[in-house]
Amino acid sequence: MKNSAVLLIDCPDRKGLVARVSGLLYERGANILHADQHIDHELGLFFMRVEWGLGPVEGSPSEKASAGAKTDASFDLAAFKAIFTPIAAELNMHWNLTSSERPQRVGLFCSQYLHCMADLLHRWRAGELVCEIPLIVSNHREVEKLAAFYGVPFEHVPVTAETRTQAEARQLDLLSRHQIEIVVLARYMQILSPQFVAQYPAAIINVHHSFLPAFTGARPYHAAHARGVKLIGATSHYVTEVLDDGPIIEQDVARISHRDQVEDLVARGRDLERMVLSRAVRWHLDRRILCYGNKTVVFD
Amino acid sequence: MKNSAVLLIDCPDRKGLVARVSGLLYERGANILHADQHIDHELGLFFMRVEWGLGPVEGSPSEKASAGAKTDASFDLAAFKAIFTPIAAELNMHWNLTSSERPQRVGLFCSQYLHCMADLLHRWRAGELVCEIPLIVSNHREVEKLAAFYGVPFEHVPVTAETRTQAEARQLDLLSRHQIEIVVLARYMQILSPQFVAQYPAAIINVHHSFLPAFTGARPYHAAHARGVKLIGATSHYVTEVLDDGPIIEQDVARISHRDQVEDLVARGRDLERMVLSRAVRWHLDRRILCYGNKTVVFD
Amino acid sequence: MKNSAVLLIDCPDRKGLVARVSGLLYERGANILHADQHIDHELGLFFMRVEWGLGPVEGSPSEKASAGAKTDASFDLAAFKAIFTPIAAELNMHWNLTSSERPQRVGLFCSQYLHCMADLLHRWRAGELVCEIPLIVSNHREVEKLAAFYGVPFEHVPVTAETRTQAEARQLDLLSRHQIEIVVLARYMQILSPQFVAQYPAAIINVHHSFLPAFTGARPYHAAHARGVKLIGATSHYVTEVLDDGPIIEQDVARISHRDQVEDLVARGRDLERMVLSRAVRWHLDRRILCYGNKTVVFD
Amino acid sequence: MKNSAVLLIDCPDRKGLVARVSGLLYERGANILHADQHIDHELGLFFMRVEWGLGPVEGSPSEKASAGAKTDASFDLAAFKAIFTPIAAELNMHWNLTSSERPQRVGLFCSQYLHCMADLLHRWRAGELVCEIPLIVSNHREVEKLAAFYGVPFEHVPVTAETRTQAEARQLDLLSRHQIEIVVLARYMQILSPQFVAQYPAAIINVHHSFLPAFTGARPYHAAHARGVKLIGATSHYVTEVLDDGPIIEQDVARISHRDQVEDLVARGRDLERMVLSRAVRWHLDRRILCYGNKTVVFD
Repeated sequence: MKNSAVLLIDCPDRKGLVARVSGLLYERGANILHADQHIDHELGLFFMRVEWGLGPVEGSPSEKASAGAKTDASFDLAAFKAIFTPIAAELNMHWNLTSSERPQRVGLFCSQYLHCMADLLHRWRAGELVCEIPLIVSNHREVEKLAAFYGVPFEHVPVTAETRTQAEARQLDLLSRHQIEIVVLARYMQILSPQFVAQYPAAIINVHHSFLPAFTGARPYHAAHARGVKLIGATSHYVTEVLDDGPIIEQDVARISHRDQVEDLVARGRDLERMVLSRAVRWHLDRRILCYGNKTVVFD
Repeated sequence: MKNSAVLLIDCPDRKGLVARVSGLLYERGANILHADQHIDHELGLFFMRVEWGLGPVEGSPSEKASAGAKTDASFDLAAFKAIFTPIAAELNMHWNLTSSERPQRVGLFCSQYLHCMADLLHRWRAGELVCEIPLIVSNHREVEKLAAFYGVPFEHVPVTAETRTQAEARQLDLLSRHQIEIVVLARYMQILSPQFVAQYPAAIINVHHSFLPAFTGARPYHAAHARGVKLIGATSHYVTEVLDDGPIIEQDVARISHRDQVEDLVARGRDLERMVLSRAVRWHLDRRILCYGNKTVVFD
Repeated sequence: MKNSAVLLIDCPDRKGLVARVSGLLYERGANILHADQHIDHELGLFFMRVEWGLGPVEGSPSEKASAGAKTDASFDLAAFKAIFTPIAAELNMHWNLTSSERPQRVGLFCSQYLHCMADLLHRWRAGELVCEIPLIVSNHREVEKLAAFYGVPFEHVPVTAETRTQAEARQLDLLSRHQIEIVVLARYMQILSPQFVAQYPAAIINVHHSFLPAFTGARPYHAAHARGVKLIGATSHYVTEVLDDGPIIEQDVARISHRDQVEDLVARGRDLERMVLSRAVRWHLDRRILCYGNKTVVFD
Repeated sequence: MKNSAVLLIDCPDRKGLVARVSGLLYERGANILHADQHIDHELGLFFMRVEWGLGPVEGSPSEKASAGAKTDASFDLAAFKAIFTPIAAELNMHWNLTSSERPQRVGLFCSQYLHCMADLLHRWRAGELVCEIPLIVSNHREVEKLAAFYGVPFEHVPVTAETRTQAEARQLDLLSRHQIEIVVLARYMQILSPQFVAQYPAAIINVHHSFLPAFTGARPYHAAHARGVKLIGATSHYVTEVLDDGPIIEQDVARISHRDQVEDLVARGRDLERMVLSRAVRWHLDRRILCYGNKTVVFD
């Protein structure tokens, strides 16, 4: 795995932002691996993602070309941060600087359906998702054996209409004790309270089994079947206070026909759900996503 | 072009329907080219489409195998109809028997945007759409030259809030005088009255520039952009009294990203609109579509 | 799970085949759930798949409509077979009659990559693939724990250039002892000998990680990257004597860009491989596939 | 239409390239609309596309933020070029600086099939393709009326095996006299000689009716049908000396089934051909494409 730093920026647009940031990095000897910008001309907003190496990259042509500059090996992230902080303040930047040296900590929630959970755990084990997964929470027990197989601690937190508040308190406590930074709802069929959601802004990723904004709420495959659509969809998004309304990260669709009954839609939909959720989690872990307004920028 | 007959049936499901219909056709010597059935087990409905040849098909293996039976050349459509009618009544069938010998007559409506119109006319000229097009109607004049190029009579029928009733009366008169059987709304931006729609049940095909049921009504690309979706869509459907609510015939989507502004969505959407509308028209002309409830069966 | 019988037929085309088969089934009181036909007019071949119920379907409208006929409950598969056999012989039919009462027995082969294996086992456990899986064979040991988790006996059969013949003999013996009917190569990276393949005609399903016929042979993602394609693909197919040349069952593609290195293609490709292989296995188990020449008919 | 300049760069990768180019543009007061980079780490190559405004953009937040800097209105392209030239030489850059003020001149070639031609001409008329089209060349006469309808001069240049050399000489003379910069082969069914191709390096765009590298050469739909593929494709690419082997610009596919005969593949393929060719032409006109080795970078 490559060792790298990622800087994510959003701020009011103005001339010279790319020159400024890339100039700063060049002066410190950064070997830029990827850089991407986006300008929302309508809103006057600037977005940037830069990734640079934190260790020597063997055989890189940059190595020879920049013999006189500081080598990657010596890139001092703390020093860069100290220099960058006042500049960012001056330019009204929101920013986030992370390093792959410290993997993010992910908590997985599910209910009875395990297809997304099994998919995420397999991808994690196979190295597709670079993170730590110290916690699986479910209001059912179906996931228990799968959690054990992958060696992830499982916590059973039943939820009823009466116990919702206490259940969420227990969930929040578990998340806190395991220092969870990202919560992934892998077909977790309970609605989280605004109080819960407020603890993890732009850090709870859900998968909804429809092509949002069509068919919000419960039983979207039944609704899609009733409406007679010719494509079904699935959507991964950040959770906000309003149900199924948060910033969309990824969507995909599959073709269906008059032959498909609701159970066929459910079966096809599982593949869509796996895909859009796992992509969202991977992009989030790769720090490719910036939220603004109720939308996302996903750098590719 | 092959010369063939198409029988479309829908009726309450019961055992032996396929045996009955295929037996009847076999007795009359029909050379079946395609046959397809669908059973909606939930509603207890049976749907069938059978297509058979009306002229000798050279070199067909069926010819030799069935030397003793009646040849295709002599298939008597009128006689079959006479026999089939009482049987169909007995089985509570809705049915429709058509022959490719008489092409259907299509009227095209549009407003200012010509991409769907240009696409349909080119496909018609190229032989992809087998029909007659004796009439183009528009509330604007942009289409006039295109209509002239393809040799289709053009009628300019302006529409305002005040003149809607008279305009529709004039449109209906034009449709009637040109014996139009199918009306295609190729980005016609006026809403038709229930009275107009009632004249052409399951015979007015519209294209809506969104993935229905998301973003009904006006300016769907603006709404899609505001919601931050990652795929945009287009939908072709039969027009019913309720706006954007008729039986869906075809849908398709295209991937977009945060880089795409509303005008990019509009541009991408044009390709989707062309595709889903032209497919719907072709399938309708090929008698592949059966409506039931608010849905379609599209035989492939 | 529904209890049903499936009859697959291919034979020279002639008039009246649908009438004959559907008539026979009607006389025996079959409640047809799905029926589909295909005629290859060029080759003069007829293909048919009929599925009918083998137990009473509650609340079915067919029940009431056919009160006088034999009920589903009493459908006698053996008696039908006895009647059908001479008729099929007379019509030069190849045919295959199976019942969902006896699930097919599948053997899974893999090497080091486990994504297809994990996917198939999860789908099997979740009920998406209705079959028995009494055997997993690999030339490596990576799959061992996964096999144990799903409770499937695992056999380690190492293969080298020198031991290929003995290894295949051992594999064939294992397949025989476990009465395996279908072999699924879930990224099994060894080439099977013609002698092995001949034992399982149209019953060994492989996934190749390219859009065949492009990039046959080894390292297709490297070849795709070198050629600069804009879409990568995966293909599931029946194994024949000629490498990567058997009848194609399913293909799918994913969009890539200049940003994607070989390892990105490999990662994206894994999702394609899972999809096309699992669909092929499901369709085979559902008896939806007929091979003819070097092609497949896949009834939907 | 926005008035803008586009700078395309490729050169050996080294540190500080983004900082250098963006710094230069900032100093001259450029209002950057889009910027994108790509690094091929394997080959050690750097690619960049920058687009900036050449006239005042009303209401732009950049305007206010950069009140002290030079305004867009005064951006002096010639002066920038003078400064940039020696820097680019020092950094071993290939570069290309163009302005939307001078539309590119496109020559269209076709044979008998007109679907791509009709599509390109309609898109051009509708403003989707920003260029001048002063010439249509064909070895047949089918396109003549269409050319006249769109007001494009048509030249009939018949080609036979014996007259190929003279025909190409005449074509080259026509291209030269009309100052054509880009040649688009819109289903032109003649093979161009290496001598012809050498006159327009990376400036002849062809559409091939298959998913390259599968099915090169003649009659790819027949070959696809014979192989029994489940998806058909089309590819747009730059023409090089080797047939169907040039850098791929865009590819797309459509799903087919056993029901589709060769003529169905041809019909479906037409839509793919239209799409991939029109996208390639638009991206080329927008200067989004850089060729290297036998591949393309397509900036989005």
